[in-house]
Order: sequence, then structure tokens, then C-alpha cells
Amino acid sequence: MRLVIVGGVAAGTKAASRARRLDPEMEITLYQEEPEPSISECGLPYLLSGVVEERDELVARTPEKFAEKGIEVLVRHRVERIDATGKKLSVLDLNTGETFEDTYDRLVIATGARAVLPPLPGAGLEGVFKLRFLTDSDEIARYIQEHSPNRATIVGGGYIGLEVAENLCRLGMEVSLIEGEDRVALAYGPEVSENVDAELEANGVGVYTGEKVDEFTGEGRVTGVKFGDRELQTDLVIVGVGIRPNVELATEAGVEIGTTGAILADRHMQTSVPDVWAAGDCVETTNLVSGRPTWVPLGDTANQMGRVAGTNAATGEETLEFPGILGTGIFKVFDLGVGKTGLSEKEAEDAGFEVVSAGLKANDRAAYYPGATKVFLKLIADRATGRLLGAESAGSGADKLTDICAAALWGRLSYPDLVNIDLAYAPPYGPALSPVIQAATILSGKFDRAREGVRASE
Amino acid sequence: MRLVIVGGVAAGTKAASRARRLDPEMEITLYQEEPEPSISECGLPYLLSGVVEERDELVARTPEKFAEKGIEVLVRHRVERIDATGKKLSVLDLNTGETFEDTYDRLVIATGARAVLPPLPGAGLEGVFKLRFLTDSDEIARYIQEHSPNRATIVGGGYIGLEVAENLCRLGMEVSLIEGEDRVALAYGPEVSENVDAELEANGVGVYTGEKVDEFTGEGRVTGVKFGDRELQTDLVIVGVGIRPNVELATEAGVEIGTTGAILADRHMQTSVPDVWAAGDCVETTNLVSGRPTWVPLGDTANQMGRVAGTNAATGEETLEFPGILGTGIFKVFDLGVGKTGLSEKEAEDAGFEVVSAGLKANDRAAYYPGATKVFLKLIADRATGRLLGAESAGSGADKLTDICAAALWGRLSYPDLVNIDLAYAPPYGPALSPVIQAATILSGKFDRAREGVRASE
Repeated sequence: MRLVIVGGVAAGTKAASRARRLDPEMEITLYQEEPEPSISECGLPYLLSGVVEERDELVARTPEKFAEKGIEVLVRHRVERIDATGKKLSVLDLNTGETFEDTYDRLVIATGARAVLPPLPGAGLEGVFKLRFLTDSDEIARYIQEHSPNRATIVGGGYIGLEVAENLCRLGMEVSLIEGEDRVALAYGPEVSENVDAELEANGVGVYTGEKVDEFTGEGRVTGVKFGDRELQTDLVIVGVGIRPNVELATEAGVEIGTTGAILADRHMQTSVPDVWAAGDCVETTNLVSGRPTWVPLGDTANQMGRVAGTNAATGEETLEFPGILGTGIFKVFDLGVGKTGLSEKEAEDAGFEVVSAGLKANDRAAYYPGATKVFLKLIADRATGRLLGAESAGSGADKLTDICAAALWGRLSYPDLVNIDLAYAPPYGPALSPVIQAATILSGKFDRAREGVRASE
Repeated sequence: MRLVIVGGVAAGTKAASRARRLDPEMEITLYQEEPEPSISECGLPYLLSGVVEERDELVARTPEKFAEKGIEVLVRHRVERIDATGKKLSVLDLNTGETFEDTYDRLVIATGARAVLPPLPGAGLEGVFKLRFLTDSDEIARYIQEHSPNRATIVGGGYIGLEVAENLCRLGMEVSLIEGEDRVALAYGPEVSENVDAELEANGVGVYTGEKVDEFTGEGRVTGVKFGDRELQTDLVIVGVGIRPNVELATEAGVEIGTTGAILADRHMQTSVPDVWAAGDCVETTNLVSGRPTWVPLGDTANQMGRVAGTNAATGEETLEFPGILGTGIFKVFDLGVGKTGLSEKEAEDAGFEVVSAGLKANDRAAYYPGATKVFLKLIADRATGRLLGAESAGSGADKLTDICAAALWGRLSYPDLVNIDLAYAPPYGPALSPVIQAATILSGKFDRAREGVRASE
């Protein structure tokens, strides 16, 4: 029995390890186009600044380590074609330039996603980068070493752009950030965007929202960014305007693509093609709150999907299920943590819910305990049923509040359930009543008032 | 309509505020025996050391502030008798020594709990204290000021003893801790006790477990503690060996007492006596995991119970319910956070479950992110159904892990549900797969092995 895995970051390597563990006899080969497998891509912004000191720290396992477990990992090998009928692959060895054919009994597609570099004038200039792979980070590091840029421009105010902004500031650069929409952190509500904006400005980042880049200027190397009627001088540009799933290979192999543009897989991570599973950033899944297809490419989800795909590819059965996601995410920008789970207010409305929400700024610990600071939390719920639909948080302990709400969503709790939830209290860890309880109590009040008109709650 | 509330810490003051909000017309009087209402008792250990600088910071609201809301708060007033038939109270004014009679239409009993000072020889010596009220803390502070004790002895290795140990160390004292059972933090499993023990020893606290104090020695003022065949020299003793619910008043009024020794109340916090509700540390409730009566007196629960009792006492109806608790708790000892929710392994076994558990030490953030350190997490589950029964954690982020598990318990999740739970990941906030997911995955492996004998999971 021969298992081939295409792609070797989080999902692919997890699938390989899991299959090996379940079936010591199976032949397992993994093809990875980049020079290293099992890269911690989420760490790349921190490698830029030296917060992560060594690039090797971001390579969780080398091909040699995989070989010890009997997993053949071939890096710098690009799978160019899958013949799902003949169960064959055409593979280009990027080291030699030669193409060869391989066969499989079972296949896992984990081709990931790629950063989008919009086709703007000047996008090909030296000094204009995206940041997705370790090789991107290597190139940026080399460029910084050679040219000592003083002024950097980030295009895109999503989490990659924001993380990169922080890390370039750490290198002493003067950083500007340009966002096409009218606010940064668009996946969140406006209060969170305001928090992020304030944090950027407090750290000296120039923020330009509602601005579309027209052109990168320069001769050979980038020296400016034009947008609206401005031109910013710049020595370095990093573009983080979005990513797209790598589905070309799968599409050509006849694998069905979902409505989000990513690969369609069932709860067992099986594709529409027999003996072909898919996992990671190239696959869509279900948002468990809206019930709709969603594509939120993140490392932890890729890991979990890889475990399911690898298990089922190993057993050939529907052994494990991947139920879907909540769309939980978090990022740090300077000293501000920003997290989210479930649907934002806008996403909930788009999904057809009539929304009720409550936001508050609460203490992150007892008010009298040293270092007490504020954290924003918003709960979003379905007016009709009270069901919790989402939460977002910014500030100290946003990670904790986000995860509490994620667990609550996972259990399909309603906000009235959260009014009396028994969370952990001691003065160093929170106010007597968690911000989650406070927000749920506010929602109860709104709900009471809306329904009965009287007898308000707190 | 006249509402009287007996007791004014967390539950009583919350009940009063809530009733006032719901019914602007109601007469509300609150009797509080101590000199101040709405004390943050959880902050007392930190006041001792000056981590909390001003005692006023622990008084959330003064009687004057309550008066502004039309709530009469009479401090240093002890309710000595309740006549539930005649709806009358006998009240001793501790300022004047006079007793007077009051009447009520509805009554909330929130008499709290008191620290136990065991009747040991020498327990009455100067310098032997308990720590429950702000007045206790005042006395200890005065004693420390006058006598500058160098050596302190804590009796009891529960969370109060541990918090006090830390805070006396901060004052430069040489601290010893004596625990009668064979390990500290007995509400937790042995791994957590070992973590706490190591933290105490790393901070120079002398720990004596399995030792019962025989006698406090000294002439007038304490100078020693005898246990086994030892005598420790000491200048100060703080006893934290447990607390008991204040139920005498309720008992004499004919209110039914539960099996735990605390007041029995229904889900509406109503007692067995008409028009009498109860809330806070004097009341038992249901452990939602075991389904059994439980008494876990904590400030956050008192607050939540107070809200329910105050609401129902105001409306005279069964407006709100308090469902019960999980037994969630957390404390900090030096740099170690220690949290728990649901049942410990032993508690689960005592409750009749056949238990399966998985403990691990995981990173608190991505291994490559600066400052990564270990956190212990154990999940406890029901072997038969997979239902999560409890969790305990010690180390960095123990508060977050405890709260995630508390929310999971609140939603009655099973550990297989937690293998794919969508929690928030970014390198500064956790490893790619949360320790909760890691532990659930280990449990799945154990379960598979136990059931099928083969095909182990990770």
C-alpha cells in the first residue's frame, strides 16, 4: 500500500506522521516544493525582526527526521500533474530539472495556499515582497542586510500586515501601512479596528485606510508607493493583501472545488475523487455557526485536518471526522492581543441572523490587583434563540476570552447559559465576574428589555 | 414591600443592588456585622504584603454609596434571631449594644462563612490569627507593625495558606507551612501538588506535610509551634485550615440545612421557608458534573447567586435560576498559577465514575517564541461515555486552560469533541495545538487502545 502526500507544511506532515503511526507497513512519500518541510509559517514575521533568532527554529522536522520514521520526504519536488484514473503523478525535481512519474494507492492533497501579489505597476521591482514561505523570509532578510532600508510600507491591514508592521518597527524602520478598506482588521467589528489603529499609532506606524495602491515606483529597486494623490517614499514593501488556495493541481485531477474556491472535502476529508483526501489551507470546510462553507486557512486547523486525512488515508475507512471550524483566530500587534471566534456582527447578519450584541471594556484582573488593565470583549448572539454566534476581544487576556467563547460556541451555548457559567476567579487572573459573564449579563438585559419592555437586567 | 438582607459581602450586596434595580420602590435594608460592606475578601492576602497598597481598595462600595441608590446599609449590626412566622428580626447594634426589632416581607440570608480556628492549646495566644475578614487583616497588619515578626508559620496548605505564604515571604519573613495531609493543594491531583511544592521550596518556604499541629507555645505571645517531635520557632501564625458556613441563624429560623452542612436552597435560591432566599458562602448548590450537593464558597459564585436571589426576592417570582457550579477555582502561589474545574480524579471516582485521564506538560506558546515555558494540564473523563469530568492545570496560562475546560464542562462536552475544537492560535499565545487539544488527543488514544486493543492514536 503506497500513500503519497502532496505538500509538506502543517497538514501534509501531520497526515504523514499519523498514517505512519497507524500503519507501520505502508509506503509513505511526501513531496514538498519548498526546500524544507514542516515550516512554522506563523512564526515568519517574528523571524524577520529576530524575535525568533534562528531560522532553524521554524523548521519543526527535517527530511532526515522523517526518514527515521520511514517517511520519505522529497523537498524541492513539485507535483505537476495527478492522474486520478491511473493513480499516477508527474513530479518535477527542481534540483535536477527532471520530471518523473510516481504512483499511489492513496493520495493526500495538502498543497496549501499562496500569497496574492496584485498585478500593480512596479510589483516586480526589487524590494517588493510577499511573506508566505521561509524562502520569502530569507529573501527579505537578505534584502534588509544588503540595503538597510529605513522606510517600510506594508500593504494590507490584515493580521499578516499587522504582525509584519510590528516586527519591522522592531528593526527600527519607519513603517507605514496602507489598507484599501476603511479600517484595519476588517474581519472584526469597528471597535476592535479602533483598538488596533490606536496601537499602531501609539507605536509610530503611519496608517492610511481607504487607500488603494496605484503603483510602486522606482528604478530597478522600489523607492515609492503611489496611492490617491500621495506618494510615500519607501525602501521596502511587504504586501499582505490576501492568500488563495492552491487548487490547480486538484482541479486538473478532477477533484471538485467548493463555493469558496478551495477544495471540497467531506467530513472525513475525502475529496470527490476515490482514494484522494485533502487537508490544510487548500481545503474548505464548514463554519459550524453559520452552517455554510468557509475557507479560513490557519495552521492549527491544518494540523487537525491533517490528522483526520492521514488517519482515514491510512485505514482506507471513515475512521475520523473533522466537524468544521468556528473561524477562531488571534494575532498580536505590539502589545495588543486581538482574538475572534465565530461570526462577527456583519458576518452574522450576512448569514441571515438577527443579531444582538454587547461590548464592554472590563478589567483583566481585580481592579485593585497591580497591573490591572482593560480588555475589550464583544459577544454576538442570535436575537431569536439567544444562541451565541461569535465573540471578539482586544487587549490583555484577549486570548483567554476568545478561547472561553470558542469553547462555548463548540458546545452551542446561548448567552443566558453564560450568565452563570462557573469560570476561574482569583484577583491576579480576572475580575470577580469574567468579562464573558459581564457581557452575557448585559445581553440578558437587552433581551429582557426588548421582549418585555420593563424589568431591565444589569 | 420591605426586603431585608442579612450579610453584606458579595452575595448580600449584589442581591440588594439587583433588587433595587428591578424595583425602585421597594424598601431595602442590609445588615452587616463587620464594619464595612462589600469587601473583596479574595484580596486580603495581597493587602498583607502591600501588593494591594490601600485597604480602601478592597471596599468596593461604602454605605454612603449604597444610600445614594436607596439601599440602607447598617454596618456593625448583627442579626441575632429571625422569626420566620412573624417575619421579624432581632438585631444587635454593635455600636450601641442595643437590640431592636425589625420586620420584613422578604428576606435574603447571606451570612457567609467563617474561618475555623481549631481548639488547640495556645490557639488564643497573641500572634495566632486567621484571615477571613478585613478586620482580621487589620489585626495582622497591626501585629506585624508592632512586633516585626521574622518567622511566620502557616497552618494549612489550601489556597488561603498558599497565598498567605507568598505574601508573607514578600515581607521578608522566613515562612514555614504545615499541612496535616500528605500533600498541599489537596483538592488537586498529586502532579499539581508536586508543582506547588516545588514552587514553595524554590521560594524558600519550609513545607511540612503529614504533620498535625499539637500546640502553639509562648507566654502571652506565640513563639513556637509543636508538631510531631518538632518545635518550630515562630513569631506569627496564620491558620487557614478551612471555613464553615454560618448557618446558625438560618437553622434557628427553621430553614432546612443540606447534606453539606450549608443552607439548602432550590434553583431559585429560595430556602425551605416562604419568602426567604439565601445566597453566597452560606448556601450549598449542585455540582453539575457529579449531580451531587456541593459547598464551594467562592466570591464569583456568591456574586452570581446574589443576582439570582436578589432578582427573585424583588419580583417574588421564580424569575431567574442558578443552575449550580462546576467547582472551578484558581490561585496563584509565587509565579505559579494553579486552576481546576469539575472533579479531580479522586472526586470523580468518589462520585462513582470510572475515570480515564491524561496529563501532559505542554508549551504555553510556540516553542520558538521567546519566553516559552511549560504548563501542566490534566483532563479527567468518564471512561464509559467520554464525557469530560474535570481538568486541572498548573503553570503559565493555567487560568486560560482552566477556563477553556470550564466552558467545555458547561457545554457537557466529551473529550472526543475537544480533539478538533477550534481554539485561537498564534505563536505568542500557545502551541499550534492547544494543550487542551493535545490532552484530548492522548485520551482518544487511550480510549482506542482500551476498546480495540490496536491502532493507537497519538
